[in-house]
Formats: sequence, structure tokens, C-alpha cells
Amino acid sequence: MNTKSDHLRTLLEAELADYISQLPDDNLYGPVKYIMSLGGKRIRPHLVLLAANAFGGEIKKALPAALAVEIFHNFTLVHDDIMDEAPLRRGEETVHKKYDINTAILSGDAMVIEAYKKLALCNAEKLPVLLDLFNQTSAEVCLGQQYDMDFENEKSVTEERYIEMIGLKTAVLLGCSLQMGAILANASKADCEAIYAFGKAAGIGFQLQDDYLDAFGNPENFGKQVGGDILADKKTYLIIRALQKASPKQRKELEAIYFEDTITDPKQKIERVRSIFRDLEVDEEIQERSKAYFLVAERELQKTAINPEGMEQMENFLSVLKGRNY
Amino acid sequence: MNTKSDHLRTLLEAELADYISQLPDDNLYGPVKYIMSLGGKRIRPHLVLLAANAFGGEIKKALPAALAVEIFHNFTLVHDDIMDEAPLRRGEETVHKKYDINTAILSGDAMVIEAYKKLALCNAEKLPVLLDLFNQTSAEVCLGQQYDMDFENEKSVTEERYIEMIGLKTAVLLGCSLQMGAILANASKADCEAIYAFGKAAGIGFQLQDDYLDAFGNPENFGKQVGGDILADKKTYLIIRALQKASPKQRKELEAIYFEDTITDPKQKIERVRSIFRDLEVDEEIQERSKAYFLVAERELQKTAINPEGMEQMENFLSVLKGRNY
Repeated sequence: MNTKSDHLRTLLEAELADYISQLPDDNLYGPVKYIMSLGGKRIRPHLVLLAANAFGGEIKKALPAALAVEIFHNFTLVHDDIMDEAPLRRGEETVHKKYDINTAILSGDAMVIEAYKKLALCNAEKLPVLLDLFNQTSAEVCLGQQYDMDFENEKSVTEERYIEMIGLKTAVLLGCSLQMGAILANASKADCEAIYAFGKAAGIGFQLQDDYLDAFGNPENFGKQVGGDILADKKTYLIIRALQKASPKQRKELEAIYFEDTITDPKQKIERVRSIFRDLEVDEEIQERSKAYFLVAERELQKTAINPEGMEQMENFLSVLKGRNY
Repeated sequence: MNTKSDHLRTLLEAELADYISQLPDDNLYGPVKYIMSLGGKRIRPHLVLLAANAFGGEIKKALPAALAVEIFHNFTLVHDDIMDEAPLRRGEETVHKKYDINTAILSGDAMVIEAYKKLALCNAEKLPVLLDLFNQTSAEVCLGQQYDMDFENEKSVTEERYIEMIGLKTAVLLGCSLQMGAILANASKADCEAIYAFGKAAGIGFQLQDDYLDAFGNPENFGKQVGGDILADKKTYLIIRALQKASPKQRKELEAIYFEDTITDPKQKIERVRSIFRDLEVDEEIQERSKAYFLVAERELQKTAINPEGMEQMENFLSVLKGRNY
């Protein structure tokens, strides 16, 4: 039981509900209201508040930054879903399916501006440094999405570039969220850097673990369809490394199954690919890489001068990320 | 001959060229480089510098804000062209045609962030007020685009709502550009408001005149195809007012020609519609409305305490906007 963390979450949920309720119901902001109401784990804004609290800052002053990162994150979902032609998001219709593509483009644009509007509500003294961090991070998130799209058309992607991509697309926004909270709590430069590195490493560890679970997770606990990446022929760490480690014969078979759909039955395709992954031990390798990133995160966290309560909450957060052992 | 204005333009062109040249050639920023290189009149960034100069500010300090508005304006072109399915922009392929829709969405997103990056380079003391103005304006521009799309599906749009739409979609960014320059030059609140009102009124006047010229301009001087709006069944001030003023019989004919394409020959369609516009005297009315907005602009300009050189440059700008009597 963590009363303080619950308190932060209550504050956050109230602020989000308040924000969502005041959005107009028109064609521009109606879709913003829709996507923001679909929920999600609210990890990023929670991290802003956790960091602000851990470095002894005032939580209320960090709420606008928390909303900024959550609105920005949801904007990326709206536009990414158009690009990926995804029909569903959080079990509901994606914005471009519920409305149309033009609406999803324009309402997404409005969300970026909404995020900056929230950011502008932060302490004026902190604004230049917050704005620089947010600009840098959001540009990196776009670049990560671009790399992800590029990879789909590239024959050979190295695992280093794959990890760089997930770092940009997913992990930097976690680092940014934490650092924003730290900045607003007047944390030292060293603390700001360490808490960012903690978030980024934890984010990469989490994403690698997510790739593992997508192929090998327990269908009863994993939120998404197990084998979804394999069926979508998605280039993840597993297939990248498997193709590298495979014998010429294995490589030929794997490429045929993965990219040419020579096995038409979905269940059989998933099973055969998983079996090759296991033979090549990339299932173990990805878990080790994930653990290594979590270890880096742990080390960075220990570098910070956060208070004991904050340390406990950050450890809890890391446990939640690591603990998806289904 | 206006040496100072030429000097501002030279500075601006150099800054833009410098900015464009340092953009990476990758899949994310290559399209940004492409659209930013297509040229255009660079009206908005020029207005930032003109205002900074007119209120006695340092031009160099206004250059980042000038780039911010130009990058933002080009972002709106990239995303609007997707929504309008436009094949050409400034005589060249639009971004989504040259690349693809996903690229145009994502590179457009990156441009919004680029605009904010430029804004973040402005004087830290001025940043909160500049950011508020830019956020407010960019949200209005999105809303204007939304109204424009909404109107295409609405049966009856009033001329007030049409003028509100062009105000949001086009004119506020002119006002914002001027006000940014004024803010950076430490202009008074009253001056900041008057120069904004000047820009906004001039923008609406210009857009109404553009609507007139689109139907009645001289093909030899008008940059676009004369009659383009009529052929595209676009809801402009002319058709909105014509339908209001028409007799039941005229209304029936006009609706049939305009929205049901009962005249298939383009030249004949344009001629018949123009003839009805003339009969209903909406050609004269729109010119009067345009002039009235230019008059408001003139009055607002006279309210400001700008220096004589600045006044001359602003008058020149207004003359250029008004002077498109082809």
C-alpha cells in the first residue's frame, strides 16, 4: 500500500477529468476528448508527479507538465494509428476509424498545441528549460516513429538501430517526464540527468520485455494478442537477431514464414516462428538485454539524491515495469 | 525604393537559407527541406521583422520568431494539402504526392516542433508571452481549417461564419507575426494590440479580395487559375451571398450549376456563375467588404506609436496587399 502514490494518482485523475470535461464537443476537440477519455495507464504524467514529489517539489505546480506529456503521448497514438492503419486502440475504435483520416490529422495537430498550452502554464522561470527538453524529446519521438516506418522497408536492420528506435519512440518520453518533474522541484543538474537516464533505460528494458511477451507471454495475462507481432510481420528485436544468428537453412525458412507467409494458418505460423526463436535462443537473449537495461535504470536511480519516500515509489514503478512476467 | 525593407528581406532570406541547409536529408526532415525550399512570399516572417523594426527593436533578436511563424505556416500547408488532396503547391508536387501521406503527416508534425524550437530561441524574458500568443494563434489556425472543412458539408453557411473562418485560418497568423515583432521590441500593450488588429483586418481584407480575384481577376496577372474556386465548388463569400440574395429561380439555377455540375464545360460553368454573381451584385459587395477591412487595418495602424520609417513600411505592406487590382 502506498498512500502518497495513491494521492498523486487521485490528483492526476481529477486534473485529467477536469481537462477532458472542458474540451469543446466540436469537430476539432471532440476527437481529442474521445481519445483522452479512453484511459490507459497514464504512466508518463504519473512519472512527472512522482519525480516532482521525490525531489521535494510542489505537486500542484507539476500538474500542467503532467498533462502536457499525457496529451502529447495521446497525440502520437492518434497519428501513429493513422500511419499504421490500426483499427483499434485500447479496445475501442481509433480516431481515424471513428471519425475520418482528415479529422484524425487535424485533431492530432490541435493536441500538439494543447500540450504546449499546458506547458506554458508552468512556472515562467522554468519555462525555457522545460520547453527545450520538451522540444528535444518530441522531435526524438517523431524521429523514432520515422525509423520504425523506415525499418519496415529495410532488408537488414541491426539490433543497435532497433534499440535506438525504441529508445526514441518510447523511452525518451519517460525520461523527459521524470526530468520535467525534477526540474519543477529544483533538482540539481546531476539529479535531472540521472532521473532522465533512469527513465530512458527503464523504457528500453520495458519495450524489449514487451517484445518478448508479445511472442512468449501468457495469453491470459498479456493485454494484447500473443503472437501479434509475428502475424504482423513486425521487425522486432527477436526477428532481427534470429535472422542474424540463423544458419543459411534456418534463415531461408524464417524469411519465408515471416515475410512471405508460407504458413497461412496463424496458429501454426506463430508456433513455428517461436520454435525457431527458441532454437536460436533469442528468447533468452532478449530477456537478458531487457534485464541489463533495467539494471542500468537501477544504477541511475541510486545516483539520485531523492528522498526515501521517492526512492520507494520509483522502485515500485520499476517493479511494475519489470514485473510483467506473464 | 525602400532600402531598410530590402535589408530586412536580405537578413530573412539568409536566415531561412541557413536553416534549410542544416536540415538533415533523412526521411523525416528531407520533406521539411523540400517544402521550405519551394519559396513563397515569406509574408509572415517579414511581418515579424517589420514590426520589430517599426517599434525600434533589434532585428537579429526577432529572426528566430520570424522563422517560427514561417515554419508553422508551411506545416499548415503540408497538412492542409493532404486534407484537400491537393496535387500541387507553388507549382510543384505537394509533400504527400512527392513522398506519401504518412511522410507528410509525420514530417508536418516535426515542423510544428521545429517552429517551437525556433520560438524557444527567443529572449527568455519574453518567452511566456510569445508562447501564449503562438499557442493561441496556432490553435485558431487549426480551428479555421476545421471550419473550412465543416463548411463543405454544410448546406447554409452565413457570411459572418465565413469571415470568422478566414479570420482564423489566414488572418490571425498575420496579426500574430506582427505582434511577435512588437513584443520583442518592447512595444506597449496598446501598440501590441493595435498592430495585431492591423494584421488581422488586413488579412481578412486580402482574403476577401483573393476570393473576388479568383472569380473575376485578370488571368494574365492572377497567380492561380481564374475560376478555380467555382470549378472546385468551393464555398466562398461570393456563392454564400449569392445564394442568400438570389430569387428562388436564380437560387435553383445557381445550386444546380455550382453543386450539381449541370454545366459540364468548365469555361461555360465559370461564365454562367460569374454572370449570376454580377446580376446579384455580389462582385461589388465583396470588394466593398474587402475595402472596409483594409480601412479598419489603416485605422488600427494609425493608432500605433511606430516610427516614421516603420509607418512607411507598414503602409507599403498594406499597399501590396491592396494593390492586387488585376
